[in-house]
Amino acid sequence: MNDQNDTVSAIRWTDAGLRLLDQRRLPDEEIYLLFDDAGAVAGAIRDMVVRGAPAIGITAAYGVVLAARRHVLESPRAWQSGVREDIRTLAAARPTAVNLAWALTRMQRCLATAGQSPVAALLEEARRIHVEDVTANHFMGDAGAALLDEDSAVLTHCNAGALATGGYGTALGVIRSAWSAGKLRQIYAGETRPWLQGARLTAWELLRDRIPVTLIGDSAATLLMQQQRVQWVIVGADRVAANGDVINKIGTCQLAVACRYHGVRMMVVAPLSTLDRDMPSGQQVTLEERSPEELMQLAGRCIAAPGATAWNPVFDVTPAGLVDYLVTEAGVVAAPDREKLAMLSATQNSPQ
Amino acid sequence: MNDQNDTVSAIRWTDAGLRLLDQRRLPDEEIYLLFDDAGAVAGAIRDMVVRGAPAIGITAAYGVVLAARRHVLESPRAWQSGVREDIRTLAAARPTAVNLAWALTRMQRCLATAGQSPVAALLEEARRIHVEDVTANHFMGDAGAALLDEDSAVLTHCNAGALATGGYGTALGVIRSAWSAGKLRQIYAGETRPWLQGARLTAWELLRDRIPVTLIGDSAATLLMQQQRVQWVIVGADRVAANGDVINKIGTCQLAVACRYHGVRMMVVAPLSTLDRDMPSGQQVTLEERSPEELMQLAGRCIAAPGATAWNPVFDVTPAGLVDYLVTEAGVVAAPDREKLAMLSATQNSPQ
Repeated sequence: MNDQNDTVSAIRWTDAGLRLLDQRRLPDEEIYLLFDDAGAVAGAIRDMVVRGAPAIGITAAYGVVLAARRHVLESPRAWQSGVREDIRTLAAARPTAVNLAWALTRMQRCLATAGQSPVAALLEEARRIHVEDVTANHFMGDAGAALLDEDSAVLTHCNAGALATGGYGTALGVIRSAWSAGKLRQIYAGETRPWLQGARLTAWELLRDRIPVTLIGDSAATLLMQQQRVQWVIVGADRVAANGDVINKIGTCQLAVACRYHGVRMMVVAPLSTLDRDMPSGQQVTLEERSPEELMQLAGRCIAAPGATAWNPVFDVTPAGLVDYLVTEAGVVAAPDREKLAMLSATQNSPQ
Repeated sequence: MNDQNDTVSAIRWTDAGLRLLDQRRLPDEEIYLLFDDAGAVAGAIRDMVVRGAPAIGITAAYGVVLAARRHVLESPRAWQSGVREDIRTLAAARPTAVNLAWALTRMQRCLATAGQSPVAALLEEARRIHVEDVTANHFMGDAGAALLDEDSAVLTHCNAGALATGGYGTALGVIRSAWSAGKLRQIYAGETRPWLQGARLTAWELLRDRIPVTLIGDSAATLLMQQQRVQWVIVGADRVAANGDVINKIGTCQLAVACRYHGVRMMVVAPLSTLDRDMPSGQQVTLEERSPEELMQLAGRCIAAPGATAWNPVFDVTPAGLVDYLVTEAGVVAAPDREKLAMLSATQNSPQ
């Protein structure tokens, strides 16, 4: 554990309810919002107060605790239907990250055996999901860092950090571990239009832990590779299909194609909760498209020519064949494919 | 000539001097700045009041007219050294586009034979450079459009339009001609971070000519190709090396790599003034890097985490092998290479 490189904690449970760091306002303001209602938690996921596949799952788990707490109090004999309704609302908040459904399934299993006073058991399960995620991230961080040579330079995309997870991060977990081990010469982060997760969030959390970072425009990644300034691209994932296809932030596939062309290695870091055994390939996923305004406005000001329209898909699919390494808490998979992932997913419900 | 699709004119010579549409302020304001001094013209090129390789060349040519007018007036017997000094200043304004040096060479040749009252001859030569560029663009527009099938969808990057040239545009010249011919189902434009030439300029000039355009984040281009939403990427160039390597806006190489991977065709549209016979390959070019602030601020507001640094190269090199068609005013070259370009460049000084 490299705690000196792990000071960011975006999801905090307190007796008053769930506190979420409002990631829409970073890096300008560091404000925690308090939620005591599951519907409002679903809104926070939808509106990206919290984002990142593992963080969405953990948040939804705590949302179920809030749902139970409220409905048990309001109708001690008929709280179940209210909780079920809230779970449906949470599940529908965003479509792409599978961790949301995965965490809700775990919470529902817990609920099924929790009896008439389920709140304590649900809170324990949500905390377990949270802690397991952080533990997995530390394991993956060290395992991924072990793949890197000394004096490496890496590029990451979007934010797969402490902010996107229970803590420490997936891609940024590898970067934190590699930085601690003195292996990193330089860290580049793509700014990640339109929401600027790289410029706003990745830069913020790395600098907070005193890890230097250089931003690039998303379009500059190929030149970075052409000039041999990076040896690795390291990213997280919102969903990994059963055949190893990786669904992640828009631009990931572009990086993977460029990596293969330039001989740069592509590492995807994702806990088993991100693996979707029920999805044969990335072709079946629902890729979220968000409002064109996200692309055409900044801070309420229009930056595009009036009258233009925009297409704003926020995820894409990277074919498994373009992934050199998939790092999970059950081990590192080189050149992931259906067979290798089937072996991994057998351990899915017993993370280390 | 498709004049209904060609209403934008960013460079205007008047008796008072050179009027340039201030492209930094588009699309919010349409303001022409007046220049009567070559040093100020060099500043306008450096600060991107005017940008785009052919437009920079034309602007510099008019800058030489201003230099001569001023120095002949101020020192009728010893104006030559002042003009030479101004030409050096103009040549140093930006490093990547070869059209700047090309236009200044033509103006210097004119100067050498112009005698002691050179202004009229220089103005005639600058106007000729300007008119030849527009003529070339109309020719290339029609030639490039002829390559497209009916019902095509295209993606362009940056702004290679009327704003970037003497008029009509290179890549946007092809799009204007194809639109007039009814061949285009959809036109996508990458927003082109950091300066947003796509969102601000390409969208503005196409919409002004009532040609619909859909913006995408630069990272979304690969998904556009994966979903077979485009058949062509069409771009301009700032310099084409003797072997066919294309130096153009950052992100162009990334698009070319993605095109090849997905079977989308890549068209580069560039007049012969962009061809640099003296540069063996793209490896020798000086790729301009601009201030990190351009990346870390958007519309004047800081968008990145405080303390982050940025790398902001604004051009990249696309290997000739990734270019399917190079369209010039001397004809269309499929799969450009050194031999084919050597034949083309023989006609360089006699454009149609």
